[in-house]
Parts: sequence; structure tokens; C-alpha cells
Amino acid sequence: MEAQEKVKIVNRYIEGVSSQDMNAIREIFDEHATVEDPIGTDAHVGIDAVCKFYEGAFNAGVKVESTGSVRCAGNAAAFPFVARVPNMEIQVIDIFEFNENGKITSMRAYWGPENCVQL
Amino acid sequence: MEAQEKVKIVNRYIEGVSSQDMNAIREIFDEHATVEDPIGTDAHVGIDAVCKFYEGAFNAGVKVESTGSVRCAGNAAAFPFVARVPNMEIQVIDIFEFNENGKITSMRAYWGPENCVQL
Repeated sequence: MEAQEKVKIVNRYIEGVSSQDMNAIREIFDEHATVEDPIGTDAHVGIDAVCKFYEGAFNAGVKVESTGSVRCAGNAAAFPFVARVPNMEIQVIDIFEFNENGKITSMRAYWGPENCVQL
Repeated sequence: MEAQEKVKIVNRYIEGVSSQDMNAIREIFDEHATVEDPIGTDAHVGIDAVCKFYEGAFNAGVKVESTGSVRCAGNAAAFPFVARVPNMEIQVIDIFEFNENGKITSMRAYWGPENCVQL
């Protein structure tokens, strides 16, 4: 899978989350995808659980914005971004893994309380 | 393991690599640590192989500089940085995993040709 294609999916993700577009989520994640956000918590397994997770984020009014280049290597992409909800800003790094169909099979989010700033 | 402790090790790593300090590498990595740099290539397994990898980087004159906050979650830390060698600059994201002794057991580096700029 070309880096360019991965970057396109990351951009679609950032736009999709910020515009609360569940169709984008269903389109870019694999049916059996897992989401671990943040690392160390129970993963959401399968597209329905993944959509439910993003529904919660959408309801919280989340907006995300890239803060640096997408790093592509192997079957993966890593990127830094800021997530904003009313009254809080969180610095995050996400890792996506892709399958041969260009779908995200795994999303892992790295962030902790030290990365949260009350607005 | 406290986030503060992980951040300290990341900073020691950045300083240690930039000052070609192999003692720092031996100190912060576990004896059985693995290094995959970049993701998708064969891992360097065990402290001797890890040191050999950094010896190569030191010989290339690498300097690294943080470009954003360290994100700590679970047993891991993720951080963005720029690596500079003569004539090239590379935007990288590293993921460290730690064991209960506070040693790095796994380093994975995310970067590709698209993240390299000739100087």
C-alpha cells in the first residue's frame, strides 16, 4: 500500500471525525477493526463497537487537527494531532495499521492526563 | 510506571543519541530489548544488536530533537522528533514500551521516504 494512499485515509479520518461523519468511519475501518484509545484501556472490537466509540466522541463535540506530518512505514501510519472538545485540548499520537484492502484494522491512540489542557 | 519517569527516559534518549552516548543506550534499554527502525524492517534483538544499530547511527552523525510532547499511556510512550544527519532531515515518531523495571523493551520507529528532506 502506497504511503500516499495511507496519507489520504488519515486526512479523510481527520476530516470525518471533525465533521461527525460516521460514513467516513464505516468506510475507512475494516469490519473487524480494533480501536484502543488510549493505549492500556479495553479495545473496541469490530466496526459496530468502533462506531459506538466514535458516536461518543461526536456527542462530546470533538474536533481534530493535524500537528505534523504523517509517518508511513510497513503496513502502518503514525501521526500527531490535537483533539479539542469544549473546555479541553489533548495532544495525541495515533497509529493506524492497514490490511491489503486499504482498510484500517487497528487504531491505537497514545495520550495521557499530562497531554490534556483545560481551556 | 509514572508518566514523568517515561518522559525522563525519552529525554535521556534524545540527549544520549545526540551526544553519541552509548552508556545512555545501555542504561535505558532492557537486555532483551528489540528495535524496529523503521517499522517493516527486521528488528534488532537484544542489547548488543541494539547498541550496534546505534553505533551505525552515531557514525552517521545523527542528532535528534523533539518536535512535540511525549504521549504516555499504558506501558508506552510515543513522541515526535526530527533526526538530522549531514544533508538530510527526517520526521519520525517513536514508540517505546517499558517493563516493570523502567527499561525500554521495545522501540518502534515510524518514518518513510516521504518524511526525508535533503538539505
